[in-house]
Amino acid sequence: MAGREFFAVRTVAETLAGFRPARRTAVETVALDEARGRVPADPVRAPHDLPGFARSTVDGYAVRSADTYGASEGLPSYLDVTGAVAMGRAAEIAVAPGNAVAMPTGGVMPAGADAVVMVEHTQEAMAGTIEVVRPVAPGDGLVRADEDAPEGAELVPGGRPLRPQDLGLLAAAGVTAVRVHARPRVAIVSTGDEVVEPETAELEAGQVRDATAVALAALVRDAGGEPDPRGIVADEPEALARVLRDAVATSDVVVVSAGSSVGARDETAAAVAGLGEPGIWAHGIAIRPGKPTLLADCGGVPVIGLPGNPRSALVVFRLIGLPVVRRVGGMTSPPADPVAHARLERDVPSAAGRLDIVQVALRDGVAAPLFGASALLSILGAADGYVVVPDAATGLQAGTDVEVTLYT
Amino acid sequence: MAGREFFAVRTVAETLAGFRPARRTAVETVALDEARGRVPADPVRAPHDLPGFARSTVDGYAVRSADTYGASEGLPSYLDVTGAVAMGRAAEIAVAPGNAVAMPTGGVMPAGADAVVMVEHTQEAMAGTIEVVRPVAPGDGLVRADEDAPEGAELVPGGRPLRPQDLGLLAAAGVTAVRVHARPRVAIVSTGDEVVEPETAELEAGQVRDATAVALAALVRDAGGEPDPRGIVADEPEALARVLRDAVATSDVVVVSAGSSVGARDETAAAVAGLGEPGIWAHGIAIRPGKPTLLADCGGVPVIGLPGNPRSALVVFRLIGLPVVRRVGGMTSPPADPVAHARLERDVPSAAGRLDIVQVALRDGVAAPLFGASALLSILGAADGYVVVPDAATGLQAGTDVEVTLYT
Repeated sequence: MAGREFFAVRTVAETLAGFRPARRTAVETVALDEARGRVPADPVRAPHDLPGFARSTVDGYAVRSADTYGASEGLPSYLDVTGAVAMGRAAEIAVAPGNAVAMPTGGVMPAGADAVVMVEHTQEAMAGTIEVVRPVAPGDGLVRADEDAPEGAELVPGGRPLRPQDLGLLAAAGVTAVRVHARPRVAIVSTGDEVVEPETAELEAGQVRDATAVALAALVRDAGGEPDPRGIVADEPEALARVLRDAVATSDVVVVSAGSSVGARDETAAAVAGLGEPGIWAHGIAIRPGKPTLLADCGGVPVIGLPGNPRSALVVFRLIGLPVVRRVGGMTSPPADPVAHARLERDVPSAAGRLDIVQVALRDGVAAPLFGASALLSILGAADGYVVVPDAATGLQAGTDVEVTLYT
Repeated sequence: MAGREFFAVRTVAETLAGFRPARRTAVETVALDEARGRVPADPVRAPHDLPGFARSTVDGYAVRSADTYGASEGLPSYLDVTGAVAMGRAAEIAVAPGNAVAMPTGGVMPAGADAVVMVEHTQEAMAGTIEVVRPVAPGDGLVRADEDAPEGAELVPGGRPLRPQDLGLLAAAGVTAVRVHARPRVAIVSTGDEVVEPETAELEAGQVRDATAVALAALVRDAGGEPDPRGIVADEPEALARVLRDAVATSDVVVVSAGSSVGARDETAAAVAGLGEPGIWAHGIAIRPGKPTLLADCGGVPVIGLPGNPRSALVVFRLIGLPVVRRVGGMTSPPADPVAHARLERDVPSAAGRLDIVQVALRDGVAAPLFGASALLSILGAADGYVVVPDAATGLQAGTDVEVTLYT
């Protein structure tokens, strides 16, 4: 049992670039008010010009701009006010030379007018007449009928999760349902003879509650997926193989937390190897924590075998699993993580040739590394974020300016 | 109608620091798998020691560390293997001097042993005997019974939204329900004679679809709130007053998009002023876009009157409204926004004395400002994020390194 080798160890960069099972979720239609964060399957285009009519952008008077040329405080232009436009109504009156029509912000431009003078640049000269004290150019004080979006223009791209303002733009265009990728269904399988449900009030000697599944479920939701917890499977090859076969047949992504001992990990690897072609892609990732990670492509369905200890499992799933779930869900432009820059409080040792993920607590611009056995989940609880020590580095020195990826 | 004054214009900094209506949501209990992003009302403490028993962190042998002192490749310690610990079971055998017990990672430490030798540092000498080729110190290869968290230790703080790893830590401790602040119920009132529902297929002249409500609802959810859309109210003082009174009586936060014209804004201000004490706190914010923003405290319920045009409304709500919703929901440590640093592509003019929010598109490390009438929602759609031009600045020069807050 000594000297166990990982026969296909990959770097994190290789994994992110190269592990790309073909699975993509189907397309479904969702209502706009449920579409936040959903991923449009294709670009959505404007069905007609927006706003659809020329609109005033100020309170003032619709005019023919030529009538205001040269207007100044000393030599104002005098215009006859021949009417007013009401909000939400067609303009019932045209603007003839020498005339003006009162406009609310957002009102429909009347025929004949090509600009709106702001009310601040006018004075009432006498009843029915205004003085304009500043000239306007054609197009001033209004937006054109197609200025927000001409018919056929792309309102939102495919592949990028919908943001609040995207929903607003679609609503303005009257697009109230969107074709989006279905949420990837992510089976979450826990294994380990020692693992029991979190609801277990009294533990027997040696038992631990399943900390990984509920945290993975939250990460899956963060990535736009739908977690499908499959419960806890004992370290028994046949039972594990059966659960995994069923998961691969009915899910878009399968995540299994392998047992923590070498023997339990071997059983998981054997069960995954039997699931389908092309099979195991990586058996070990050059990352700490998280080396004993297994990646497989089972007929297009990604299968991710996570380390048995919860902390390693969550670190690896965040780095390797979230991009997989997002890609299966059609996301080509994933959102950015928040980061902060900080000064490293103390030296962080690392071996070259692997990526180290160092949990840190942030205070007053200083990042304090949190050390401790990878079995300790509390380290992740105490962390505000993490620092990546790159493959090539042999550590980071105290005082280094580091980028901290923040947990949210 | 000219020369209208804002009688209580506040800066953004004043607003964020000073506009603090007292409303807080009640406390409710939610199941752990629904608790992602929810805000604990109080710190949650460990009900017992975690993991609760001393556990091996490696595959190897439980030993008395004194038996390995001075062990080396040349002069190994010989120990008799007297048994093995099974995963998830109590250790049935104690380790006597000169003995060793085989351990899986995560197994219960047997009595008598104070360390675990990694299997890599042992060799099988003959059946039932191992050579230990490196010494171990007390505590090596294991975690103590209370090392992840002693009984009573804080597992998660109050006031910070629960992160995936927090759920994991709570699950490990057997805490499967959490007392959290209820989601703030946020009434969203749209006004304007020109505004119609997004579902309206054919617009009549001068009508626009309500773009703001659905985008605000998404922002409210992002802040942990529960949007409660109250529909569109015509620019009619009595109708608006009635809807707002009802909203204040039944909501934790009220958001109203004022009509876009000065007259409509005045009506909104009058209706809000009549809602209750202490009443209007700000009538105008020194921000662009978004100056005609109204803030009121109506018996502890924050009322936020947003500008009529959707783009200004969304900019202001993101800056001013989200912190209000979060605070009402008990959040004292809100999550960070993602940011990126970029080089400004061209000059951005600004007036001193107000905060300017400039929408930018990001490409290859360059932030291109997106200019255009504030009535254009497409500017927000095209933006990857925004740059803040501080109150004191009179603009930013091309080439400046700017921090872009990214939309997600």
